[in-house]
Amino acid sequence: MTRKSRGILTVVSGFSGAGKGSIMKELLSSYAERYALSVSATTRKPRPGETDGVEYFFKTREEFEQMIAEDELIEYTEYVGNYYGTPKSYVEKQLNDGKDVILEIEIHGALQIKEKFSDTLLLFVTAPTAEELKHRLIGRGTESVEVIESRLERAVEESEGIEAYDYLVINDVLCESVDEVHHIIQNEHYKVSRNLEAIYEMRSQLKGFAHQTDVLKGEL
Amino acid sequence: MTRKSRGILTVVSGFSGAGKGSIMKELLSSYAERYALSVSATTRKPRPGETDGVEYFFKTREEFEQMIAEDELIEYTEYVGNYYGTPKSYVEKQLNDGKDVILEIEIHGALQIKEKFSDTLLLFVTAPTAEELKHRLIGRGTESVEVIESRLERAVEESEGIEAYDYLVINDVLCESVDEVHHIIQNEHYKVSRNLEAIYEMRSQLKGFAHQTDVLKGEL
Repeated sequence: MTRKSRGILTVVSGFSGAGKGSIMKELLSSYAERYALSVSATTRKPRPGETDGVEYFFKTREEFEQMIAEDELIEYTEYVGNYYGTPKSYVEKQLNDGKDVILEIEIHGALQIKEKFSDTLLLFVTAPTAEELKHRLIGRGTESVEVIESRLERAVEESEGIEAYDYLVINDVLCESVDEVHHIIQNEHYKVSRNLEAIYEMRSQLKGFAHQTDVLKGEL
Repeated sequence: MTRKSRGILTVVSGFSGAGKGSIMKELLSSYAERYALSVSATTRKPRPGETDGVEYFFKTREEFEQMIAEDELIEYTEYVGNYYGTPKSYVEKQLNDGKDVILEIEIHGALQIKEKFSDTLLLFVTAPTAEELKHRLIGRGTESVEVIESRLERAVEESEGIEAYDYLVINDVLCESVDEVHHIIQNEHYKVSRNLEAIYEMRSQLKGFAHQTDVLKGEL
């Protein structure tokens, strides 16, 4: 009985400041052979230190709109004047190679993907408390009141969508959250709905055995 | 953000010879504080070494039928002339104490429970292959061809119900299967649907913060 070797498509979303970036980084470095992190395409300008094809595929607006037109994205969204999207070909290739693919995207993109691929696993990462989340946003010390306020408002908006997700990861101790996410994704491989072919095959073999009395007598 | 402390109700079924008894025994001894194994009531006679209240609560037919009449069982079935059932009070008490309760029962009982308690987790344990399952049944060397055949036929019948289960545990290496079952059950605690109260609470707190510009300014 062999499990289906196709990878699991997982979408990770979460509040700004909940630490999903740190969880992803740690997970990918701990289990590099198991996971592939999808690289998004975007029209926003690279920040210092960002490399094309690593953090993002940087595209012009024209290039991005052509990808939309040719259905080369499994989801896309526009946010603060820039496009962000997930190239289809890379994700499909990794899944077919048996890698579990992780997309780190916001809720609207997550729901688009779930609608197209119903077996997508949706994880939502949160800080342990609303108070703690606020402290983490303030704690960076790099943003104005207005930016922090708009993030809090966005957090309220995102919190309205949590019910659409499958699992809630409460990120308190980083290494524990990494283990949690790893187990949640790996357990997906054991779902009955992801092993139907193997189940059909075993059933058919059992039916064969059940009507071979003479063969069975010979084996005793 | 505190997770709901109520335990998870898990039903484990599987083919005769798949080793679910060994998995349960190992799981319970490894994580005694986490799990409670439900003890079934039955009208079958105790086998040598079996103790009332440990392997089963042994009942007369009259006693069992009174339990049915008084709705004291969450499921029951009749198999080869004997009743088997799960006493309700014990299960409820353990779940309320925050223990994850495991019931080891066959498919008809499993489906009865899922119908009554829709958040029950259903696990199905199988040997790695149909061939291996047959060898395990023969390997005991204690049964006649007729008994083995009837078990194989029962296996065919049980295999027809696997799609109703949530997870498939392929029991090849015992300690790995024990880990799998442990992680599957523990992950259930992270399901969004089991943490709705905590989510509602966080949302309400975030909404409070998002409209307190003056407070926020004071904290920066």
